[in-house]
Amino acid sequence: MSLRHFLSTQHLSRAELEAIFSLASAFKREPTGHALAGKGVALVFLNPSLRTRTSFELGVHQLGGHAVVLEPGRGAWGIEWREGAVMDGEAEEHVAEVARVLSRYVALIGVRAFPRFRDWAEDREDPVLSAFVRHATVPVFNMETILHPCQELAHALAMRERLGDLRGRKYLLTWTYHPRPLNTAVANSALLIATRLGMDVTLLIPSEEYRLDERFLAAAEANCQESGGSLRITTDIEEGYRDAAVVYAKSWGALPFYGRPEEERPLRERFRHFIVDEAKMALTRGGLFSHCLPLRRNVKATDAVMDAPYCFAIDEAENRLHVQKAMMTWLIAENTPHV
Amino acid sequence: MSLRHFLSTQHLSRAELEAIFSLASAFKREPTGHALAGKGVALVFLNPSLRTRTSFELGVHQLGGHAVVLEPGRGAWGIEWREGAVMDGEAEEHVAEVARVLSRYVALIGVRAFPRFRDWAEDREDPVLSAFVRHATVPVFNMETILHPCQELAHALAMRERLGDLRGRKYLLTWTYHPRPLNTAVANSALLIATRLGMDVTLLIPSEEYRLDERFLAAAEANCQESGGSLRITTDIEEGYRDAAVVYAKSWGALPFYGRPEEERPLRERFRHFIVDEAKMALTRGGLFSHCLPLRRNVKATDAVMDAPYCFAIDEAENRLHVQKAMMTWLIAENTPHV
Amino acid sequence: MSLRHFLSTQHLSRAELEAIFSLASAFKREPTGHALAGKGVALVFLNPSLRTRTSFELGVHQLGGHAVVLEPGRGAWGIEWREGAVMDGEAEEHVAEVARVLSRYVALIGVRAFPRFRDWAEDREDPVLSAFVRHATVPVFNMETILHPCQELAHALAMRERLGDLRGRKYLLTWTYHPRPLNTAVANSALLIATRLGMDVTLLIPSEEYRLDERFLAAAEANCQESGGSLRITTDIEEGYRDAAVVYAKSWGALPFYGRPEEERPLRERFRHFIVDEAKMALTRGGLFSHCLPLRRNVKATDAVMDAPYCFAIDEAENRLHVQKAMMTWLIAENTPHV
Repeated sequence: MSLRHFLSTQHLSRAELEAIFSLASAFKREPTGHALAGKGVALVFLNPSLRTRTSFELGVHQLGGHAVVLEPGRGAWGIEWREGAVMDGEAEEHVAEVARVLSRYVALIGVRAFPRFRDWAEDREDPVLSAFVRHATVPVFNMETILHPCQELAHALAMRERLGDLRGRKYLLTWTYHPRPLNTAVANSALLIATRLGMDVTLLIPSEEYRLDERFLAAAEANCQESGGSLRITTDIEEGYRDAAVVYAKSWGALPFYGRPEEERPLRERFRHFIVDEAKMALTRGGLFSHCLPLRRNVKATDAVMDAPYCFAIDEAENRLHVQKAMMTWLIAENTPHV
Repeated sequence: MSLRHFLSTQHLSRAELEAIFSLASAFKREPTGHALAGKGVALVFLNPSLRTRTSFELGVHQLGGHAVVLEPGRGAWGIEWREGAVMDGEAEEHVAEVARVLSRYVALIGVRAFPRFRDWAEDREDPVLSAFVRHATVPVFNMETILHPCQELAHALAMRERLGDLRGRKYLLTWTYHPRPLNTAVANSALLIATRLGMDVTLLIPSEEYRLDERFLAAAEANCQESGGSLRITTDIEEGYRDAAVVYAKSWGALPFYGRPEEERPLRERFRHFIVDEAKMALTRGGLFSHCLPLRRNVKATDAVMDAPYCFAIDEAENRLHVQKAMMTWLIAENTPHV
Repeated sequence: MSLRHFLSTQHLSRAELEAIFSLASAFKREPTGHALAGKGVALVFLNPSLRTRTSFELGVHQLGGHAVVLEPGRGAWGIEWREGAVMDGEAEEHVAEVARVLSRYVALIGVRAFPRFRDWAEDREDPVLSAFVRHATVPVFNMETILHPCQELAHALAMRERLGDLRGRKYLLTWTYHPRPLNTAVANSALLIATRLGMDVTLLIPSEEYRLDERFLAAAEANCQESGGSLRITTDIEEGYRDAAVVYAKSWGALPFYGRPEEERPLRERFRHFIVDEAKMALTRGGLFSHCLPLRRNVKATDAVMDAPYCFAIDEAENRLHVQKAMMTWLIAENTPHV
C-alpha cells in the first residue's frame, strides 16, 4: 500500500476536503476523539511556532496520543537533506535515518521547514518535506513549508462559518509591508484554497516583482476551471478592495530578489502604504478581514482593523486546532488497510 | 461574568486562601484530580525555569490535562506588549493576538515574566502579565513576575506543616549576597504572605538602598492591621536573627540602582557577610530555614545550613506541585458559571 | 532500603538482563503498560538528543506517565556538580537541590551528560551522573554519559532477534573517522555487552592512541571469563572484518589527546579510510552492520552500507523504545518494597 500524506490541499479531492471540514466542525462541538489513542506524533520544527505547536500538541492530546516536539539544531542534531551527501559539514544526521527512525516510534510525522531564502529554484522543490516523504514509512503532514495547507483549512472553515457557500464571493489577497522578505507559503495557499472553493479571487501586489510563483498561479487557474471561480492580478489598491467580501493580508518577498534582501529593500520600502487600514476596508462591501498570524500591528494592519468586529483572525486561529484533528484523523483512516 | 485570575495572593480572601491550603494538603495525600480533564494549559516562559515548569507540567497532567510550554523568542515568536505600538522592531506578534489565540486553545494561561531590569517605574506595573490579563479570555496565573504567589503558597504551607498556627511567630526575611542584582519578586511575596498570616516579620537589609518597593511594604503593613502581625525593618544582623522561628533568605537588587548593575556593585560587594551560616542560625530560637531555590551554595547560604535538618527548602519546593494543583482547581471552579 | 539505579549493564545480573530483554520483546508485541500510571519522569539533557528524547517521552507515555524534558542551561538554570563549591561562577543551582527537588516530583530521573572533553581523569569518574545518584531519592537511569547502557540493550536485542544465541559469534567493533573527537561511551558499552553475551569480540582501532580506557577493557575481559567470550584488539582492517557476524561502527577521540582536539587532528586525518564500505563488509561472513546513530553518511559509513539489507541500525533504534520501557518497569518494580 502506498502512503497518503498531507502535503497540499491540491492532493485531496473535493469530497475529501468536505469530509475534513465536516469532521472539523464536529470537533468544534465535541473536541475529543480516539484516532491517536496510545500513539505518538512527531512534530519536527525547523522554524519557530506558537499556534502550530500549541494547536498540534493539544490536538494530538485530544485524540488520545502524545506529541513529541523536535527542533533539529536546537536540542536535537542538525540534519542533512541532500541524497548522497558526504556529511563532513555541520549536520550530524541524515533525514534518511531521522525519518525512518521516527517512523518506528510514531504514527504521523509533521514537518515545518521554511525556505532557506538563498535560491528559489531549490526552495520551490520543498527539499526538506520531500526528503521526509521519501524516507518516512508513516504519513507525513505539512506544518508550513512553501505551502501552509493547515492554515488553508482553518481559513476556509472560518469563511464558511460566516458566509456559507463561498462561490462567486470576491476574495482579495493583498500583499502588505513587513520589514523583511517573508515566506510566500501562506499567499500561495490562500490562492489555492480560495480558487478551489469557487471564489472570485483578486491578487493585489504592489508591483510585478511581487507576483507569486507561476506554478501556484497556474494551479489556481486550473482550480478556477473546475470550481467556476476566477483569478485576476492587480497593482491597483482601489480595484483590489472594491466590493470585496473577504480581505486576506500577507507579506512576502519579491522572488526576483530572492536571497538578496538588501537589493529588494529600496523597492519594498516604497510600499508601506499597503498596510490594511479602515479607509481601505471601507471600499469593501462590508468585507471581512483576516491574517494567518503572527502579525505586526500598525505595520501590516492597523489596530483598528485588527480589533474590528469584521476581523476573524482569532477565529481562524482557533480553527487550526479542529481542522488539524480532522486532518490527522483522516490521515490515520486513509492509511489503515481496510478488510 | 468577569474573570478571576491568580496574580497575587492579595486578591484572595482569607477564606479562599484557606480553601486552597486545604485542597493542597489533600493533593499531597492523593495526588490526582479531574479539574483539567481533556483541557490544555499554556505555560508561557519568558525566563528560565526548572521547578516551576516541572511542577506545572506534572500538576496539569495529574489533573487530567496537557500543558504546552511556550518560550517566546526561543522556539516561538518574540512578543510586543505595548498597546498601540508600531511593530517595526524585533517582535513579530502582539500579546493581543497571543493571549486571545491561546485563550481559544486552553483553559488557563500561566505567565513567567521577570522584570527587564531597565526601569523600575515601568517594571513595577508588571506590563507583561497585565497585558495578558487585558487580552486573555481565560484565567491567567502568575508564574513569577514582580511577585511569586505560587511560591508564597508553597512556603506558607510548608511553615504551617511544621509550626501549625503561624500567628505571633517571628519571621525573618533576610537579604543575602548574590553576584548579580536579582528580582525582588520572592522578597515582596514573602512579606505579603507572612504578614497576611499574622507573623511578626523582620526585614533584614544590608543598607537602606535595599528597601523593597513602598507599595509592597504598605500592603504588608495593611496585612498586619488585619492579621495582628507586625513588620519592622532592620540593618542589624543580630537583631534580625535573634529568636526567629523562621529564616527566609533571598537576594535582590537595590532599587535606587535599578538598571545600572555596575554602579550598584561596590555597595553590594560590601555585604557578602550576609550569607546565612550556622553562627547566624544559632541566634534563632531553634529556627527553621528556607529559600525559594535556585540557590548558590556557599554564597547565599552555606552547605551546613542547606543540609541541616532545620532547612525545609526541599519540602517547600515539593509543595509547589500541590499548591499549584489546588490553585488551578480553584481557578477553574471560580470561573465556572454556577446554575 | 538502598536504591537500585540503572547506570551500567554491569550492575545487573545475567538473569536481570534476560528479564529485561524478555519484557522488551513483550512490549514490541503489545506496546503499553501501567508501571508509570499517574507518575512523572524527569529527563535531564545536558546534550542534544533525538532518539533518546523521543523514545523516552513516548515510552513514558505508553507506560501511563508523563515525561518532563529539562535542559539545564537552556530553558532551565545552569547546574553545579562539585560538592562544597563556592558557587560564585555561572551556575545558579547545585545538583543537590536539583536532584532532591526532582525526586519529590517524579518517580524516575534520567540523565544525559556527555563528558566535558577537558580532562579524562575527571570525566571517567562520570561526575554529573554520580552527583545525581548521590543526591536523588528516586532511581536514576543513564541516558548516555561515559557509557550508554540503553543503547547496549537495544543493540543486543536487535542482534538476538537476527542471530539467536550470540555465544561464539565474531563481533567487530570498528573505529570510524569523524571530523571531531567524539565520546567513547557507545564504544565502551559495545565492548561490555558483546563480551557479556559471550561473543568473540575484536576491537579494531587505527592506532594504539585509540585504545579505550583500561577500566572498560578490563571489565570486558572479566565478562569473557564468565561468558566464554573473547576480546582481542587489532589495527589490521582485514583481520578485523574477516568472518565477522556483526560489524558495529563508532568514532571516538584518542584518549592521549583528550581535551586537545587540534593536536589529535593530524593523527585522526590519516584514518579516513576506516569508513565502513561494501568492500570491507565483503570480508565478513554475511555480516550484519549497525551503528547507534546519529551517523554522518559517506564519512562513517557509505550510503550503500547504510541502505543495505544487512544494516540493522533502524531496527536497533526502534528497540530503544521497548528496552527502555522494560528498563523503567524493572526499575520501578526493583525499588518497590515487597510485602
